[in-house]
Amino acid sequence: MAFKRRPACVTFLLFVALFQVAPRARADDPLPSWNDGPAKTAILDFVAKVTTTGSPDFVPVPERIAVFDNDGTLWAEQPMYVQAFFALDRIRQLLPQHPEWKDQEPFASVLRGDLKTALAGGEQSLYALVMASHSGMTTDEFEKIVKDWIATAKHPITRRRYTDMVYQPMLEVLAFFRAQGFKTYIVSGGGIEFMRPWTEAVYGIPPEQVIGSSVKTKLEFREGQPVLVRLPELNFFDDKAGKPVGINLHIGRRPIAAFGNSDGDLPMLQWTAAGSGPRFCLYVHHTDAVREWAYDRQSLFGKLDKGLDEAQSRGWTIVNMKDDWKTIYRVIEKP
Amino acid sequence: MAFKRRPACVTFLLFVALFQVAPRARADDPLPSWNDGPAKTAILDFVAKVTTTGSPDFVPVPERIAVFDNDGTLWAEQPMYVQAFFALDRIRQLLPQHPEWKDQEPFASVLRGDLKTALAGGEQSLYALVMASHSGMTTDEFEKIVKDWIATAKHPITRRRYTDMVYQPMLEVLAFFRAQGFKTYIVSGGGIEFMRPWTEAVYGIPPEQVIGSSVKTKLEFREGQPVLVRLPELNFFDDKAGKPVGINLHIGRRPIAAFGNSDGDLPMLQWTAAGSGPRFCLYVHHTDAVREWAYDRQSLFGKLDKGLDEAQSRGWTIVNMKDDWKTIYRVIEKP
Repeated sequence: MAFKRRPACVTFLLFVALFQVAPRARADDPLPSWNDGPAKTAILDFVAKVTTTGSPDFVPVPERIAVFDNDGTLWAEQPMYVQAFFALDRIRQLLPQHPEWKDQEPFASVLRGDLKTALAGGEQSLYALVMASHSGMTTDEFEKIVKDWIATAKHPITRRRYTDMVYQPMLEVLAFFRAQGFKTYIVSGGGIEFMRPWTEAVYGIPPEQVIGSSVKTKLEFREGQPVLVRLPELNFFDDKAGKPVGINLHIGRRPIAAFGNSDGDLPMLQWTAAGSGPRFCLYVHHTDAVREWAYDRQSLFGKLDKGLDEAQSRGWTIVNMKDDWKTIYRVIEKP
Repeated sequence: MAFKRRPACVTFLLFVALFQVAPRARADDPLPSWNDGPAKTAILDFVAKVTTTGSPDFVPVPERIAVFDNDGTLWAEQPMYVQAFFALDRIRQLLPQHPEWKDQEPFASVLRGDLKTALAGGEQSLYALVMASHSGMTTDEFEKIVKDWIATAKHPITRRRYTDMVYQPMLEVLAFFRAQGFKTYIVSGGGIEFMRPWTEAVYGIPPEQVIGSSVKTKLEFREGQPVLVRLPELNFFDDKAGKPVGINLHIGRRPIAAFGNSDGDLPMLQWTAAGSGPRFCLYVHHTDAVREWAYDRQSLFGKLDKGLDEAQSRGWTIVNMKDDWKTIYRVIEKP
């Protein structure tokens, strides 16, 4: 895996950022990792108005549904989606069972360590890698594979575990919304069964509140016991126009709050905004080249420009990561 | 201490009064519409053992997932599924826009009132009728159509509203399980968007806990606003082997309790039973020809024999409706 090395000074700053003292929760501040500013104020104001009994904007608890994109909104997505790292590791592990991959793209490039060529085909290459690496086992087996991988795999640049690269300010938003009667959902283009094994421990979001892309599964009986086998065939692609479809299928009511960071999230934000009554849409703008990554028009697998433009033109809340967030990554409590 | 003895006749009248009134919830009986017997005992014992702290069978709250079939388990399904009545009413309403239906089966037979011929093709005929009558509108429009219909439509034999033909004893089971920390889900072969508009009011089950069959939907923009349009194409058939698939997709964990009444439910019961730890499977056996319908091998659209046989051979709890249920249908509180 070859990524451009950071200059030593950047590495030092990154090091400082990682180990800076955690902001402490004050009793009166549910969002201690947020600097005061328009984004924090907008979040607090929205929650206050929909939860105040007697307010014209009051929303009953069952209707308090908030949806969150995952990659780039709840955790880092650079230099590529975490699930892509998982897929590549799986491809290498599975090579002994698939000697033909040595001469077959995009597998051959993966095995040579040439990611640039492997992913030159964009989402289609990723799709081929995901199907090859995410199917053929039972759902129980896949859950164990993901759990084992996520417990140990490290990000190639930060050397942190991926689940330690979730955004502390967003963890506070999740906890705050739930404390105010919201159900919080993930609505991600990522694999639903890639996320579920760890979202409850990391985000406090149970499996039944995770919506994502999926492969088809098939019921089989093995030694008299029913198992669900994962097939190498897409069942649902939960991105772009698929996000409102997935929300409708899984939740069956329109969210009143939505959080995203890319063009893939735009239809979900539009769908949320189009409901009647109070609505809240938030767009995470990656502006911090030192503590995270700065990018706002293009990512490896998708564009970001329409989402940002529409967020700006419609006056949605835009998070400027560099200025709005005191801390970027999850603060691990020392024992 | 001296208590005045009651005359025997007063005691007798008190006794009569107590047992004449509709079954009322006693503080110590969460299932007042159930006669004492093995089914009631099995339900109470299971819930007690999984909710008693320190018990070897204790199950933490997040894992307390119970799934319920709808047709024939929570409400009546005779002489045919309620949704089939809905489809037929819609076909008649839509005729002006579809003059070709007059010469086209199964529509022509429906319009002549000859249901037997219309449904001679079994589930395939029903599928054609459902696709024609359940698509072409937005999800919001369909929700309103269902709400309007279910509020007024009456069962052709009982002349009751369909939502008054839900089973009182099962309403008590749903409420009891929820009071004990369970999340209750519907897992039905019926349409997910046919059920959601009324399940919260009738069963206390919110839309996000309803799993069912679905048509594909597509995001469109109409006058600048996003809508989801229902397409005449099956997205998912949530019956038979589809039920474990639907459970896995929507819930992402294996239920510990499952309730059904047909071969369509058998894989869901098997999937539930195959998990580790305490499990509860209940099969509703329709044995009451006077108060409901008696059928146990064949229904209009599906078979029941394998489910009943397996329930018997595996020792699952079998409800004998005639003997186990004091009341069949929902008890409507008089104002």
